[in-house]
Amino acid sequence: MTRLLDTINGPADLRGLSVEELELLAQEVRQEVIGTINTIGGHYASNLGTVELTVALHSVFNSPVDKLVWDVGHQAYPHKLLTGRLDRFNTIRQYGGLSGFLSRDESEHDAFGAGHASTSISAAYGMAVARDLQSQDNHVVAIIGDGAMTGGMAFEALNNAGHSNRRFIVVLNDNEMSIAPNVGALSKYLANVRTDPRYNRAKMGVERVLAHVPLGDKFLNFGKRFKNSVKEFVVPTMIWEELGFVYLGPVDGHDIGTLTKVLEAAKQSERPVFIHALTVKGKGHDVAEEDAVKWHAVAPPGKPGALKPTTPKFQDVFADALIKIARDDDKVVAITAAMPDGTSLNRFAKVFPDRCFDVGIAEQHAVTFAAGLACEGIKPVCAIYSTFLQRAYDQVIHDVCIQNLPVVFAMDRGGIVGDDGRTHQGVFDISYLRPIPNMVLMAPKDENELQHMVYTAVKHNGPIAFRFPRGNGFGVHMDEELKEIPIGKAEVLRMGRDLAIVAYGNPVNAALAAADQLAEHGIEAAVINARFAKPIDETMLAGLGSNFTRILTIEEGAKLGGFGDAVLEFFHSHENLKEPKIYCLALPDHFIDQGPQALYRDEFNLSAEGIVREVHLRFPDLYLVRPSIPAAVK
Amino acid sequence: MTRLLDTINGPADLRGLSVEELELLAQEVRQEVIGTINTIGGHYASNLGTVELTVALHSVFNSPVDKLVWDVGHQAYPHKLLTGRLDRFNTIRQYGGLSGFLSRDESEHDAFGAGHASTSISAAYGMAVARDLQSQDNHVVAIIGDGAMTGGMAFEALNNAGHSNRRFIVVLNDNEMSIAPNVGALSKYLANVRTDPRYNRAKMGVERVLAHVPLGDKFLNFGKRFKNSVKEFVVPTMIWEELGFVYLGPVDGHDIGTLTKVLEAAKQSERPVFIHALTVKGKGHDVAEEDAVKWHAVAPPGKPGALKPTTPKFQDVFADALIKIARDDDKVVAITAAMPDGTSLNRFAKVFPDRCFDVGIAEQHAVTFAAGLACEGIKPVCAIYSTFLQRAYDQVIHDVCIQNLPVVFAMDRGGIVGDDGRTHQGVFDISYLRPIPNMVLMAPKDENELQHMVYTAVKHNGPIAFRFPRGNGFGVHMDEELKEIPIGKAEVLRMGRDLAIVAYGNPVNAALAAADQLAEHGIEAAVINARFAKPIDETMLAGLGSNFTRILTIEEGAKLGGFGDAVLEFFHSHENLKEPKIYCLALPDHFIDQGPQALYRDEFNLSAEGIVREVHLRFPDLYLVRPSIPAAVK
Repeated sequence: MTRLLDTINGPADLRGLSVEELELLAQEVRQEVIGTINTIGGHYASNLGTVELTVALHSVFNSPVDKLVWDVGHQAYPHKLLTGRLDRFNTIRQYGGLSGFLSRDESEHDAFGAGHASTSISAAYGMAVARDLQSQDNHVVAIIGDGAMTGGMAFEALNNAGHSNRRFIVVLNDNEMSIAPNVGALSKYLANVRTDPRYNRAKMGVERVLAHVPLGDKFLNFGKRFKNSVKEFVVPTMIWEELGFVYLGPVDGHDIGTLTKVLEAAKQSERPVFIHALTVKGKGHDVAEEDAVKWHAVAPPGKPGALKPTTPKFQDVFADALIKIARDDDKVVAITAAMPDGTSLNRFAKVFPDRCFDVGIAEQHAVTFAAGLACEGIKPVCAIYSTFLQRAYDQVIHDVCIQNLPVVFAMDRGGIVGDDGRTHQGVFDISYLRPIPNMVLMAPKDENELQHMVYTAVKHNGPIAFRFPRGNGFGVHMDEELKEIPIGKAEVLRMGRDLAIVAYGNPVNAALAAADQLAEHGIEAAVINARFAKPIDETMLAGLGSNFTRILTIEEGAKLGGFGDAVLEFFHSHENLKEPKIYCLALPDHFIDQGPQALYRDEFNLSAEGIVREVHLRFPDLYLVRPSIPAAVK
Repeated sequence: MTRLLDTINGPADLRGLSVEELELLAQEVRQEVIGTINTIGGHYASNLGTVELTVALHSVFNSPVDKLVWDVGHQAYPHKLLTGRLDRFNTIRQYGGLSGFLSRDESEHDAFGAGHASTSISAAYGMAVARDLQSQDNHVVAIIGDGAMTGGMAFEALNNAGHSNRRFIVVLNDNEMSIAPNVGALSKYLANVRTDPRYNRAKMGVERVLAHVPLGDKFLNFGKRFKNSVKEFVVPTMIWEELGFVYLGPVDGHDIGTLTKVLEAAKQSERPVFIHALTVKGKGHDVAEEDAVKWHAVAPPGKPGALKPTTPKFQDVFADALIKIARDDDKVVAITAAMPDGTSLNRFAKVFPDRCFDVGIAEQHAVTFAAGLACEGIKPVCAIYSTFLQRAYDQVIHDVCIQNLPVVFAMDRGGIVGDDGRTHQGVFDISYLRPIPNMVLMAPKDENELQHMVYTAVKHNGPIAFRFPRGNGFGVHMDEELKEIPIGKAEVLRMGRDLAIVAYGNPVNAALAAADQLAEHGIEAAVINARFAKPIDETMLAGLGSNFTRILTIEEGAKLGGFGDAVLEFFHSHENLKEPKIYCLALPDHFIDQGPQALYRDEFNLSAEGIVREVHLRFPDLYLVRPSIPAAVK
């Protein structure tokens, strides 16, 4: 039997459909999402919550002429299914496949790319202004979750757009959670609206009011008369109205009939409209609905007989070490910006519920809040992904480092992140943190060193950051006792005579394996675990300068401004040193797409084999030194 | 006659004073501020607006045990006068003197350093949590202006602090403007509160309610009873209450008697309190009160007979060039984050009122709003100081560069800024922008090249940023016709044989002067105007590699990750090139205090004389090549 969904080649195909047909289509979209994610993994609960909203939006608005700007994109799988990507939907978040987020490169219906939260209102307002400047008449709609609404820039945008008298629609997809259950005053406020006994009346009310609205007439400037009549039925929600929006809601985000009417009404407004839609994360899939945190994203089921990795996740090692430290030091607290699961701080919160702070999607506040804590003798540990710390860059400089406060930054997802793709790659942190005075930067070679670095960071009396990769550790022995690593001290792991490999963080392991392979060909490479990108171990570097004519630096981060540059700076700042030939192996100057970490590591020569290739390429004179190298290696 | 102010050695001395004495003290503080700023220059209007508020705060709270966290610090001169800095007050914003902002290094009463806006609530909330974790009982008060309230992180903080049930006080110093008149929905909302006819009743009402409040009793948990009785008198201000704060206000911010009562009441609350104080910027000084924008900060009067600089300001050259371009291209628009005067975009706004957007203190939104505009064919130019663009770092990466959108970043105050000191130095932009793929970075050698770069940036079809210094240009000839500079193309300004100086931006001029001085000693230095830090001119560099054995790079930015590193990266990425001896002259790895630009440029060897010193220091072998150099130079 042909599904209705199979006949939808684009949003235009939704426009003739009846509400009943739209409801059927929504069911098919939901089944398709569930079926696909069960097979290949992906973001689950958010997407099930937006099925009806997406169907309603695409039936009322005329994408791509009208602009639908989805915040984040975790919620945009149904949008992808309705905009010509059904046939590729099973490639989502796969190498070479559809992005898990929105991407202007991928479809003309993705009006704005989004992997980080809270950007949609700003971007959509820009599009609305551009429309007016160019005397066009399309609609612009931002769809934002209540979690993303806690990000400060969403408020900056509301402040700018409200009272602007521009046609502009914001749909709040209020599912009561971001990735984790939502926190903070705004979510309490929204919960109050949701549980207000007037809400049920309101649902009826909106319908009744809209039934009497002469749509198409000009009256709908949402003047006082209309507003007042709506107000009788809906819950007063001063915030949005005080910010200059016409407020419509709350509406049931799973009721396509009402949604389309409200959206049609919003289209008529000459002023900014704020639609408050209530949805249920994981809607229509019992398990996901019950535990939307767990089902936020799911991994694909393992192939039969496949072994699950048994080594610990880096993020768990981090959290467990922090718990251990916090047991002995009651000044230690942890901060997350809406990622208690992603950072494994949920483990910490279980043991120390009063010392774990989830501040919402609010990295800026997280960092300055930590600075305030540090002023008063507390030792805050901010666990923020490398990519999200970009949001708090000024706060790291202005509030932490200028004041030289002992704030610890635990940067998870440092390096290549895999399936989340270009918006989430943690590849800039070395470059953007290194120029900041007072900052110390570390990266562990493995999960055992990670736990020592957590300890070292907490003991350090100043700003300090360490990065660690997404994924699982190497399965190395874990020391029972935590120890302090001397700040700025590297570690020689292997002696050599032909070449020194200085690796920072995760690639140390591959460097050791590469040295083994090189040794088979008669090339003896020393391997140094740099441990610190700042301060860099100058004694070690000076020693290398004396003893080696070839140095290869390796890091899993942007080449420009990265760890390798720190090595170059050292040799070019000391004019009396002999300067060896130095090559810096790092990530190239372009954005990196989604795909397996291992694949990209090999592509960028950060695997053991890649490092061997790089050694041969960058130090061709090794051929002369060791003529015994077999041609195959060359 | 001894002033009361002269007897105040610290806030403790305010505590026994009567309201009348506090009022007298306030007058003396006001006179001191006016007198000093008239003599030495500084921030004016904001500080006159906070005189009574500051006196009231220090009479009610016990700093430094109680924490007063001032946002920005433009408003904190009266605070400095009352906290033991009267005798050094005439050194404010001078080299070696008091900071114009707050600084933990300067006084134990400066609970948190602040030069950038919107940080106070986050920091103060951190201090409140630290207090509770350590079972202390001090008070924490954030004082924030209505301008700073438009910054997203202030909302992030309110969202986190509201409903927290912690003792915590926010004072909104509502003077209806940030630096420029305030914009956006929040300011309209506040204006409505201010002009509400109930406000006058409210002023009376607050007094009457407080008169009946049995202070000291436990009732003041600000339970429903109290709130409801207050509500009869004050204007309903749902936003703050919905965010979980007890709202007190609006109160007259110049009425010390009422202020002290309200603050005493707030001290009793077990829940977060939001006090809304209405003040007048420039209060008590007729001229400043009338034109608070102009009087935001004033320069010191010139010494008699001193010549005013007649060369144009860089910021004016930028704005005038943009106006010229916008006349021919109606797609060009300009965006400022509450700095229409500082960026000279007020000139642009006069000509193109509908194409100039002041989004408030909201750099994050500014950038993503620009990205949205760019998606739809508009050419947005974001004029944001180098130091403030740090606030929008993630938006530059995630919203502009990943999508490769043609947004222009005009970074004013690139380099050393002078009197504003460490929080405002524009020294990191090269380092933090260079690693971002798709970004083009430029800096002009003078004001004539600046206008061509504005034109080049607008013509470029992708993300592009140019930086220019604070202050006045060199007085060079200004071309009538604007021209496009080829992207990534440097310019040879002087030939040489002994040494190549490659300078980026502003220091090009000093490099030319240095080359003249070196020539007098027989050293022939070539001088290259790099123009681009990204993409760097590889053809030029390869040529230098073939023709020179010594290269000196110069930039007015952080050494780590800067322009010099781009040169090092080039020579270390091309293993077949001859590599000359390279030294990178740039700013050292520590924060730079306030003081004259020229002084610091010389200290860091960025002046002509400094460059000569550096050449002799870094390339001592030049002595051997040119033995004729007189000993004095050595």
